[in-house]
Amino acid sequence: MTGGSTSSGRAGTEDDPAGAPGPSRRGFLRGGATFLGGALGGAAVTLGGTAAWGAAGTPSDAVQAPDQAGRATVAFRGPRQPGVGTTPQAFATLVALDLAPGTDREALVRLMRVWTDDAERLMAGRPGLADSEPELAAVPARLTVTVAYGPAVFAAAGLAARAPSWLRPLPPFGVDRLEEAWSGGDLLLQVCADDPVTVSHAVRVLVKQARTFARPRWLQRGFRNSPGTVAPGTTWRNPMGQVDGTGNIDPAAEPHLVWHQDDASGWLAGGTSVVVRRIAMDLDGWDEVDRAGRENTIGRRLSDGAPLTGDHEHDEPDLAAKGPHGFGVIDAAAHLRRSRTGDPGERFLRRPYGYDDGPGDTGLLFVTYQADVDRQFLPVQRRLDELDLLNAWTTPVGSAVFAVPPGAGPGEYLGQALLAG
Amino acid sequence: MTGGSTSSGRAGTEDDPAGAPGPSRRGFLRGGATFLGGALGGAAVTLGGTAAWGAAGTPSDAVQAPDQAGRATVAFRGPRQPGVGTTPQAFATLVALDLAPGTDREALVRLMRVWTDDAERLMAGRPGLADSEPELAAVPARLTVTVAYGPAVFAAAGLAARAPSWLRPLPPFGVDRLEEAWSGGDLLLQVCADDPVTVSHAVRVLVKQARTFARPRWLQRGFRNSPGTVAPGTTWRNPMGQVDGTGNIDPAAEPHLVWHQDDASGWLAGGTSVVVRRIAMDLDGWDEVDRAGRENTIGRRLSDGAPLTGDHEHDEPDLAAKGPHGFGVIDAAAHLRRSRTGDPGERFLRRPYGYDDGPGDTGLLFVTYQADVDRQFLPVQRRLDELDLLNAWTTPVGSAVFAVPPGAGPGEYLGQALLAG
Repeated sequence: MTGGSTSSGRAGTEDDPAGAPGPSRRGFLRGGATFLGGALGGAAVTLGGTAAWGAAGTPSDAVQAPDQAGRATVAFRGPRQPGVGTTPQAFATLVALDLAPGTDREALVRLMRVWTDDAERLMAGRPGLADSEPELAAVPARLTVTVAYGPAVFAAAGLAARAPSWLRPLPPFGVDRLEEAWSGGDLLLQVCADDPVTVSHAVRVLVKQARTFARPRWLQRGFRNSPGTVAPGTTWRNPMGQVDGTGNIDPAAEPHLVWHQDDASGWLAGGTSVVVRRIAMDLDGWDEVDRAGRENTIGRRLSDGAPLTGDHEHDEPDLAAKGPHGFGVIDAAAHLRRSRTGDPGERFLRRPYGYDDGPGDTGLLFVTYQADVDRQFLPVQRRLDELDLLNAWTTPVGSAVFAVPPGAGPGEYLGQALLAG
Repeated sequence: MTGGSTSSGRAGTEDDPAGAPGPSRRGFLRGGATFLGGALGGAAVTLGGTAAWGAAGTPSDAVQAPDQAGRATVAFRGPRQPGVGTTPQAFATLVALDLAPGTDREALVRLMRVWTDDAERLMAGRPGLADSEPELAAVPARLTVTVAYGPAVFAAAGLAARAPSWLRPLPPFGVDRLEEAWSGGDLLLQVCADDPVTVSHAVRVLVKQARTFARPRWLQRGFRNSPGTVAPGTTWRNPMGQVDGTGNIDPAAEPHLVWHQDDASGWLAGGTSVVVRRIAMDLDGWDEVDRAGRENTIGRRLSDGAPLTGDHEHDEPDLAAKGPHGFGVIDAAAHLRRSRTGDPGERFLRRPYGYDDGPGDTGLLFVTYQADVDRQFLPVQRRLDELDLLNAWTTPVGSAVFAVPPGAGPGEYLGQALLAG
């Protein structure tokens, strides 16, 4: 378990996203309880029948009863925010907001209290406090709400000295063609769920509640495969058709790469950083590359994502292997080779989504989490900027960095360790 | 069964979207075959395990094996096109294209042959003929491709005399605030599936293949709940939170309302018409309306969609019922009352999706099918334009009308009865 880790009486956890079914819920199971191992992010999920299911907080006469993938919840409360270690849901909307002039620490505390309350409610499948469409909250579908801070939050709160040293825009890279419209932001809301209706509704509730304090600066929507459409445990394919994420880190096995274990100023323990890069893909140009060229660009086979030196997706690439002419089997400039350094600390958690905003406007929402942007993300990004065959078809058009405060424990609001400090 | 009705050896049908699993496929089922009644649009679906599944056309070593909701297919070949009577999938992208100058009947036939071939392949979970990302085709997820013609197709083919009399822009309505960017078009591609990756990939393949002949004019993306998140048979809720679609027609029970049974010119038998209206919702204004006001606006309860005169969603509304003060229980200007006429022929099949293109840009892709636009759609639209409480919060910003040619039988291409005539 790597994200929100405690569970209230009714919310599920990441290891048991459907929650612990009680006798009354089990009573609705049709034809006996059936378990679909790993159907949702490696977790055991109780498979319900078609009978209406009276979830707490759902009007008992509601016609829109959530089905099994709809009822799954992720715990909100815990030492770490959800939506980071959580197995990626099918849909993600990222909204950057800018603070209204005059928003001070007191106002930020009020906003955090509101967002904390609404995030907890919505993630449990209950309406937000001032939810004008409460019925749309009845399908949590593993909803997670993750809140993060840009530099302006620290300035507005009079706490600039407590901002992490890495909290600033990434330095410019040669490959960048950044657009203001997709860059920066004072606050980040990351809203993910396995149902797009759930994401849309939660974003609206949260953005509305913030109105007095902050206005949307940009909004980016990403998607992966719908729940139940791809075999559990399958590595996602991005819009270029590549198996994407094979070499990702496991935040449960290497938590120090993601989470601040401790922090000089104290407040960031259990927090992390998020980098959001919008990377446009030139799919028309990519079309002109044959399969051998595509595989050489990445260093992996298209069919199954295996490294060109291996047989299976998760085989360790042999970067020293040479072909018959003495060149590396994995090209010297292949993405796989260039994205790795010899330093095991220069790794981070990737949680990307595809975007498709119409013909010619397709790409990747490249979202990464790391304990320290400067130590982990930047060295890799510098290497890729310097040399990466993939750069011919990918262009970063947006970039933003945020600090992710720790999770809210019982009775706490998000960011309390910072804002009340 | 109301859409594509025949099945090739490997494609499923609407009543059995997973196809008929043969012994080899069954061999992969883990823990015995489990049936999830009605999980996908009222059909029995075979629930597979996590083992890799070697679909025809899928590389056997592909890591991205489709899971149960992913393998379901809808038959392409048949007297009627799929995607009309098909139980709505979770995602829809509608693309209107304009013909390139000089596109004549011969060019249209070539385009139809290409689209027919690719639609059949993609709907079966196989790559398009010139598919540059074949792995992205491996998850059909009930993909349907539906092709329709604007007036320009008939003109370009020298067949203007054979265009249906109703094939023209809708007359202007008082409520309209139409934008050119969302209106009109020479050709329509409607691509629907339960997986957004599948829709995105199919749209790209089909639009690319049409490049020589036509260019996108507008593209609209809509969504409903993801597969498996909402109990089967549940009526969808639109972004205003209303149960939307309760009084819809059943095209299997009343096929004459949807399909041309016969046609003076012959070619449209088995075809229909599609009206695409983009209806913006003023959700901020709607927020100011309390629940009683909202229920009065529609004439139905928000909680379960029951008419204000009834107890259950599907109870027949009593339009004559009076309240204690002598007014109708269902308001004289309620949407439910105004959208009904006394004429049973003035009904049509609605297949709407929600859209959410960011804060303040949310609404409905109102897609309807009817045998005759003038006879069925227009009288209702005129009534609603004249008086409908809902008009205060909804504004049509796009409008287009297309003729949907019949389905392609074995060996035929789409539109053959017209273009080869």
